[in-house]
Order: sequence, then C-alpha cells, then structure tokens
Amino acid sequence: MSLPDDSRYLRGGPVAQRIIAAVREDAAIATAEGFPPKLVSITVGDTAAVEVYVRNQRAKAALAGIEFEERRFPADITAGELEAAIHGLNADPRVTGIIIQRPVPAHIPIKTLQAAVHPLKDVEGMHPASIGNIVYNQLDLAPCTAAASVELLKETGLDLKGLEVVIVGHSEIVGKPIAFLLMSEGATVTVCHHMTRSVAAHARRADALFVAVGRPRLIKADMVKPGAAVIDIGINSEIGPDGESRIVGDVDTDSVKEVASWITPVPGGVGPLTVAILLRNTMVALSRQRALYQATYGVVDKLAAE
Amino acid sequence: MSLPDDSRYLRGGPVAQRIIAAVREDAAIATAEGFPPKLVSITVGDTAAVEVYVRNQRAKAALAGIEFEERRFPADITAGELEAAIHGLNADPRVTGIIIQRPVPAHIPIKTLQAAVHPLKDVEGMHPASIGNIVYNQLDLAPCTAAASVELLKETGLDLKGLEVVIVGHSEIVGKPIAFLLMSEGATVTVCHHMTRSVAAHARRADALFVAVGRPRLIKADMVKPGAAVIDIGINSEIGPDGESRIVGDVDTDSVKEVASWITPVPGGVGPLTVAILLRNTMVALSRQRALYQATYGVVDKLAAE
Repeated sequence: MSLPDDSRYLRGGPVAQRIIAAVREDAAIATAEGFPPKLVSITVGDTAAVEVYVRNQRAKAALAGIEFEERRFPADITAGELEAAIHGLNADPRVTGIIIQRPVPAHIPIKTLQAAVHPLKDVEGMHPASIGNIVYNQLDLAPCTAAASVELLKETGLDLKGLEVVIVGHSEIVGKPIAFLLMSEGATVTVCHHMTRSVAAHARRADALFVAVGRPRLIKADMVKPGAAVIDIGINSEIGPDGESRIVGDVDTDSVKEVASWITPVPGGVGPLTVAILLRNTMVALSRQRALYQATYGVVDKLAAE
Repeated sequence: MSLPDDSRYLRGGPVAQRIIAAVREDAAIATAEGFPPKLVSITVGDTAAVEVYVRNQRAKAALAGIEFEERRFPADITAGELEAAIHGLNADPRVTGIIIQRPVPAHIPIKTLQAAVHPLKDVEGMHPASIGNIVYNQLDLAPCTAAASVELLKETGLDLKGLEVVIVGHSEIVGKPIAFLLMSEGATVTVCHHMTRSVAAHARRADALFVAVGRPRLIKADMVKPGAAVIDIGINSEIGPDGESRIVGDVDTDSVKEVASWITPVPGGVGPLTVAILLRNTMVALSRQRALYQATYGVVDKLAAE
C-alpha cells in the first residue's frame, strides 16, 4: 500500500534512511580504527514469530556496515543457561550489543535476561540502569520504540521547551521512557492510562499526543487539539471491509488527519524507525565501550609511548 | 515551634515513628538470624554542613536497632580513591547499606560515586539501576525524599487510582521519582517545571499537588484546587518579620491551608520522614541481599542436610 502524498504525514522511512547513513559513516570509521561494531541476536524456541523482525534487523545492519550474528537456543533451555550465554557475550570484546528477541518461552523471565545484559552492551535500552540513565538526563541510549517516537516529534520542528505533551499509555518500554525523554527536553508531560478519569480531556489540550495502548482507533478527531502533532505507536491487526487482514494504529488516522497538523501513518510511521534507532544505539554503546577501554588501558599506551 | 493543632496538617513525625517501630522489629529478627543490618555513612572534606544530618541518621538508626558507622575522608581524596573505598564496602558482607553525604568537594563527581555503590546496597535509591527498577514497577526502594512524599499522600486515604496528580519540579531525585511511583500506583501524573507555560493552570486541576522547586511560597491559595492534598517538599531559609532566620516551604502554607484539605507543614512534614524511609530501605536492601545469598549458596545448605 502506498500512502497518499500529504505533508501532514510524519513518515519514518526517510528519517530511518538518514540515521542509517550516519551510522554507516560512524561504523566505517570505527571499523578502520580496529573496533568493528557487531550485534548478536538471541532467539529462544520457536523463532517463526520473530523471523520477520530478525531478517529486517539483519538487512538494516548490513546496510549500516554492522556485523549481525544470530544465536538460536532451544525452547527447553533454562533461564540459568541463557544467562550464562549472555554473560559470555558480555565478556566477549568482539560483541558490541546484545538483542533479546521477544517473545521468549513462558518459563524464561524476560526481565532477568534483560538485566543480565551488561548495561554497556544494552542496545535495546531495556536494562534498569539504561532506563535510570535516561531519568538522569543521559538521553542518547533509550528504548528503541520510545526514541523513534520522540525522533518523529522532532521532525515537526516544534520547540520542545514548554510544549504540552500528553502520552496515552504508561508501559515501561514505551510510554514512560517517552515521558522522561521529553521531560528532559523541557516539555510539560502528562501520562494517561486505563485508570485515567478522562483521557479525552487531557488529549484535547496536548500540543503533542503520543498513543501507545494497543486499542485500534481509540483516538478520534474530537479528542485532538487542532494543529497538534499526533504520534501513533499502536500496531493492531484487524479485518478490513474487503475481508483482508490489515494493520491499523491506536489513532483513527483518516479523521484525525483533518484536525492535526502532523500525524504518523500506521504502518510507515514509528515502525520503520525503530531498527534505525537500534543501530544508532549500537554506535552509542560502542563509543561508551571504547571510552571505558581508554580509561582502563590508556595508561598502558602512555607507558608504551615513553 | 509547635504547630497549631489542625487536622489538615499531614505531619511526618507520627508516620516516621510508626515506620521506625516496624523497622526495629524487622531488624531484631534479622539480627537474631545472623544478618544484623549495618549502615556506613561516607563524608568527604569539611563535614560541618552535614553534621546535623549525620547525627540525626545515627540517632534514628540506633532507635531502629541498626548499626551506624561513619567514615570520614579528607577533602583532597581523589574520586578514584573514594570509588575504591566504596567497592570495598560493596564487597564487605557485614555492610548492608552505603550513604554518601552531600555535598562532596567540587572535584568529586557525585554521580560517579552514586553509581559505584552496588545497587543491592543502594539504600538512598540513587543508583541509575534503582531508579530504573522503579520505572519497572519495583517500588519498594526509592529515593528517600520522593518515597517520603508519596507516603504522606497515602496518609490521606485518597484512592491513588485515577487521581489527578501534578508535580511542580522535575529533579532527578525528587520530582521524577515521585512521578514514576505514582504512575505505578495508577495516578494520572503531570510534571511541571520552570519551562511550563502555566504552572498555575496545571496546579489548579490537581487532586494532589507536590511542590519541589526551592522557591519560597511559590504556590498561593489561588493555584490550589479546593479540597486538594498539598505536599510541600521545599526547604527554604528566609528572614522573618522578627529578624530571625526561619525555614519555609515552597507553598504559602497559611493561605493554602484554607483551600486545601490536607497540607504538609514545613518544617515537620516530609523532612522527618526521610530518615525513616532510609532505614526502611536498609531493611529492603538486607532482604534482597539475603535472597541473593540464598539463591547462590542455598544448594550448599541442601548438600549439608543430606
């Protein structure tokens, strides 16, 4: 499906291309300097559900000049064995970043795995320390979907300082990180969710509205302030009038588009940008690892130079 | 100065006493079981400014049956030497928690020190991983002032689910952690700050208003919704009409008291509660350390029992 040419649409594709081109330059320099970036993807059990995601990550990594290695583990592996494998990757200086593909089998606690990834190799931005660093205003490595959503808001050129932002959805990896990222940029942020008395009342006063709740077409035109920027993070599958399955967001795009000044299409909005952010995070992780290497072993170079 | 007897006041003292009594029971049990809780306080350089705080912590720890050891370091110590000392305390199984008294000399980066404390011994809740854990809804170990402020709101008996909360001030250790704590409890949270277009407009719609900006009497009666709960976290020194120095909060208590249903006095509100939270955090840290010990060495007990 091609999107109608409408300047109100905030499309992720062109932004992703720009970011990947910049990552490609950085990766080439780092590789020439002896620090080639490398991602390791971990899949557990039946990997059919994630295969399309992994293939996309592999293709985009190749575009960016980042090595991509996939490790598959059987469904009956224990959490302890997986943690040991992650600790091995943490200790391997050739590995820049570790991605844990979700879902994992029910007997594996996903948070334990995410916390087992060393924060310096946490390219998905899921480790508690990564989340905490955002709160502490270190904004360059955030959960990919949250960072992609904020990146699209920045595409509008709106001044984030003092901007009235409302986020519908308070999940740990989307809604809350968007909130901290934008608080740190100077926005006034409100986070709504299923317990909020009137989501509409909050949504209507937002200059920028983020929606990430997984409810198709929850946000209608009468819930949006005229001229607002609407970032739709929902990905819902529904059966269209033609009987075919299709993907729709949490926003009723067709009607909201008539009210909002900017809106992300679904698909084609936040989605295409998340992998680009993952690759950018990889370069951030690499530069932090190099800084630590320098701080730890720099004195050796100095001695050698004497 | 004794406070007038007015049921609108949310006083920290009685809540602190209750918490310390509960900690005292827990600490006695843990001590009998061979895990006596112990706090180590680190002061660097001229400690006169913090002496009153340290003395208070020591006295309250004694009340709770928690050992308290003070370590003083000279002003010219390097950050590396301090980090090494902290790593020593991290490795010492007799030490439950580490407190870094602020301020430290200008050449010591405070965040590096806070990040050097092992998250399991981070009783102040300042490590990035501690902050991240709050975002991940693990709410039992939070920065002390933020947790004390939320504790006083809970004293009102208000249902936090769907409560409209406005926080004025977005500092990393007060405003933001209060926001995550209350989001996790189901409140609808807005965070305002110096870049917010109209703090008054937000404040006026709050069922619960938290203020932590360090500006004396910033919040007047016309900025408060009738019946609201107002939690004043400011501590400002000013010269009173009698020419004497006195402590006032960020809220104009006398006028706001006529509008609000609950208000924390300053002094006597949040302040007295923070040390009680520190002691409660110590017991949370101890129980996490014991759980790790059990997970790591539990198998040895089983072998011994065979």
